[in-house]
Amino acid sequence: MITILTDFGYQDAYVAVMKGVIASIAPDVKLCDLTHCIPPQNILAARFNLMLAYPYFPSGTVHLAVVDPGVGSARRGVAIQVASGFLVGPDNGLFSGVLEREVAISAVALTNPVYWRTDKTSCTFHGRDIFAPVAAHLASGVSMDALGDRLNPHTLVQPQLPPVTQLRSNPVAYAGSLQYIDSFGNLISNIPGDRVPGTAWRVVVEGAGAPLYVQGQKTYSDVSASELVALVGSHGWVEIACNSGSAAQRLQATMGLAIVLEAL
Amino acid sequence: MITILTDFGYQDAYVAVMKGVIASIAPDVKLCDLTHCIPPQNILAARFNLMLAYPYFPSGTVHLAVVDPGVGSARRGVAIQVASGFLVGPDNGLFSGVLEREVAISAVALTNPVYWRTDKTSCTFHGRDIFAPVAAHLASGVSMDALGDRLNPHTLVQPQLPPVTQLRSNPVAYAGSLQYIDSFGNLISNIPGDRVPGTAWRVVVEGAGAPLYVQGQKTYSDVSASELVALVGSHGWVEIACNSGSAAQRLQATMGLAIVLEAL
Amino acid sequence: MITILTDFGYQDAYVAVMKGVIASIAPDVKLCDLTHCIPPQNILAARFNLMLAYPYFPSGTVHLAVVDPGVGSARRGVAIQVASGFLVGPDNGLFSGVLEREVAISAVALTNPVYWRTDKTSCTFHGRDIFAPVAAHLASGVSMDALGDRLNPHTLVQPQLPPVTQLRSNPVAYAGSLQYIDSFGNLISNIPGDRVPGTAWRVVVEGAGAPLYVQGQKTYSDVSASELVALVGSHGWVEIACNSGSAAQRLQATMGLAIVLEAL
Repeated sequence: MITILTDFGYQDAYVAVMKGVIASIAPDVKLCDLTHCIPPQNILAARFNLMLAYPYFPSGTVHLAVVDPGVGSARRGVAIQVASGFLVGPDNGLFSGVLEREVAISAVALTNPVYWRTDKTSCTFHGRDIFAPVAAHLASGVSMDALGDRLNPHTLVQPQLPPVTQLRSNPVAYAGSLQYIDSFGNLISNIPGDRVPGTAWRVVVEGAGAPLYVQGQKTYSDVSASELVALVGSHGWVEIACNSGSAAQRLQATMGLAIVLEAL
Repeated sequence: MITILTDFGYQDAYVAVMKGVIASIAPDVKLCDLTHCIPPQNILAARFNLMLAYPYFPSGTVHLAVVDPGVGSARRGVAIQVASGFLVGPDNGLFSGVLEREVAISAVALTNPVYWRTDKTSCTFHGRDIFAPVAAHLASGVSMDALGDRLNPHTLVQPQLPPVTQLRSNPVAYAGSLQYIDSFGNLISNIPGDRVPGTAWRVVVEGAGAPLYVQGQKTYSDVSASELVALVGSHGWVEIACNSGSAAQRLQATMGLAIVLEAL
Repeated sequence: MITILTDFGYQDAYVAVMKGVIASIAPDVKLCDLTHCIPPQNILAARFNLMLAYPYFPSGTVHLAVVDPGVGSARRGVAIQVASGFLVGPDNGLFSGVLEREVAISAVALTNPVYWRTDKTSCTFHGRDIFAPVAAHLASGVSMDALGDRLNPHTLVQPQLPPVTQLRSNPVAYAGSLQYIDSFGNLISNIPGDRVPGTAWRVVVEGAGAPLYVQGQKTYSDVSASELVALVGSHGWVEIACNSGSAAQRLQATMGLAIVLEAL
């Protein structure tokens, strides 16, 4: 199985072109769209959606991701093997979320043109000419080492997201930031749900004006309609939501905004 | 085969997560998106699209639908068997359109966690944790009775849509309402096409001001561009359309609006 | 394999209905969405996306396209065989882009109702009632001649796009026009990339005011951010792009706009 994530949108047939390339190489492989509505060139949004979705796919799945502002430049194309499957795409931080949770068993730079499209390679559509065919060959059983030169996983590009830090242990407090805003307007932080204390807790949002305090609860309906609520989302991170509304609109929040989780 | 309908949109990987869960349980099952652009929490729109599409799928198809404003509350999860296949999702009226046309052979409340995801179940994403795995197991041959306790189909939640009523028989007249507005702006009523008389007919729309009369025809092009027309749509219901335009914009109509079909 | 292109959008289940019809006839055929976001009734946009994508699919693929402003009128439904596969849809110019590059081996008018849906055919949804079932039967091995009467491929409807013409040969210059504007705002002309001279070159856009000159380069990043650039796109045509921006917004360009490619 191959999943596909891009920022190509659904208007043009560019995603279909990649699927045609894959079907021509690996006719029996199954395809699953992760999403093609990543905001243009937004690597953090792509990173989050990959990290969100990869654990639910069968072992051996190849995750093909093409959000590629550096296409045509010297940035590397890579394939990475983890316990649950493979990652294929440009080396720009797309896979950093998965790699916070999974060990890279091996990683290669895509330097062997034998596994690219046989026609001449374009400067602007490596998704079609390199990444899709490499993903198809991987799904068909080609070995990692055949695809190119081994690289040290520690040299893979890291994202710009600051790590979660513990501010104090009693009462517990962690500093983090918003790693994604979903289409419901939920503000998803990078603080793992297991940091939430057993006692009462809240999230502090530091914005333009006074700090905003959002009480921690179990689920959306623990607060009235249109009220803000902090909770551990189904994805496993602390999030700020608005019951029957959009927390993103209410708070005019953007990705990267700093927040603090604290016990009361 | 499993079809999937949600209000999750195409921006986030939430639908892909459900597909990954299904593929992990039932790797050979085929998936088909019904639509993921149901307006958020709009049960009537979901009900209509399910009713529109289910007759065209192969016998035994499982229709998985997750438009679920009550997730985390006490609302039931259900599986329902009809002659042509199965329906899986929350018990909130989603399936009421199908059940106006199909007998429920059996129905169960989804109470057996053996067929849910083995990890702990979230309060907010039953699509991933309960409905997708149950649909996958059903498609793999698990019996209805294994999934939970039998329930009386008459206790399933009914929609808020008033039924079509006959006002008079000569000349014939029926009162109904708009059950859906599609993306072309066609206003689709709940009056079945077989109520349309053999003679001339029209639809009366009662709005804010004076009643509006729309003449019945065979097809869009029976009227000039930008003109309103009433006809029996390809789905089998009486609809009001605008040739090369949007009837919804012209009439500022919303779902639920009352209309009358009458012979002339 | 069957690809599907429509202007139905993703909101309603109309595309899913076509997929259900296909799955009921040809349960083992694979489906691939080309795009369903063609602007309503925009035959030129559909023509371009078909021409863009068809070369990448496996031999024998059936391309089903339903952008059909004339549904219910006397326009023909057609199936066309080319070397790489089949084309099925209304005869309104949709396939003219493919047929500029491929010889029509045979073409038939879809006149044999044996291969339509058995229920009565609607006046408004031939995608469901004629084109989807015909595509499914073709993919299952039914012969072209079984589908209807042979027609002369020269009688197929031609598009409104003027052909590329050579203005002079030294220094070389060609007149063409914009055949598509993609969702990134790239302006894609109908001038093939192999007309670009080995020497320096530019594109001249004749708009409302003074002519605009855009320098030819190899790739987007050959110019600064927000600057216009002319290049040969990954699809093989001369295009005007804007590095990290939208050329369509910058130039307020629309499909059909005349341009000239000239050597310097």
